[in-house]
Amino acid sequence: MKVLKVATASNPNSVAGAIANTIKDYGEVEIHAIGAGAVNQTVKAIAIARGFMAPLGMDLTCVPAFLNLVIEDLNRSGMKFIVRGA
Amino acid sequence: MKVLKVATASNPNSVAGAIANTIKDYGEVEIHAIGAGAVNQTVKAIAIARGFMAPLGMDLTCVPAFLNLVIEDLNRSGMKFIVRGA
Repeated sequence: MKVLKVATASNPNSVAGAIANTIKDYGEVEIHAIGAGAVNQTVKAIAIARGFMAPLGMDLTCVPAFLNLVIEDLNRSGMKFIVRGA
Repeated sequence: MKVLKVATASNPNSVAGAIANTIKDYGEVEIHAIGAGAVNQTVKAIAIARGFMAPLGMDLTCVPAFLNLVIEDLNRSGMKFIVRGA
């Protein structure tokens, strides 16, 4: 599954465009976010992406889950979102 | 639809229990969160609630949307999550 990484500084509109394009191509996308700010931007982006998909007759659903990554030898925990076209 | 309100200080495990119970009773629940911290707690709670529902053979999907509220004459924007058992 294609993975998008979202940061606190990510623009939700740009992320929404990437989500919409990936769903159109692959039907689903996984999004990784570490930290409350990044999670917030991700949720906004998914809400915006629903607006991009609605005219195509598609809705999006997301399934959140926990994520454990090792970045530069440090354990980081975050959230991942599996977003699917429906 | 029953509405749960989540704050930054909410305990994700407690919210997850409330989500699971409401889904068992009503099949769906709406969650309101204002601010990045509250959105983060909500996403964690939904991820935990999936673990509560899995042994019952149910999965949860969530649909995020924007939320506009007037609280004490001030406009506040936040996120709402519509969570459904699947």
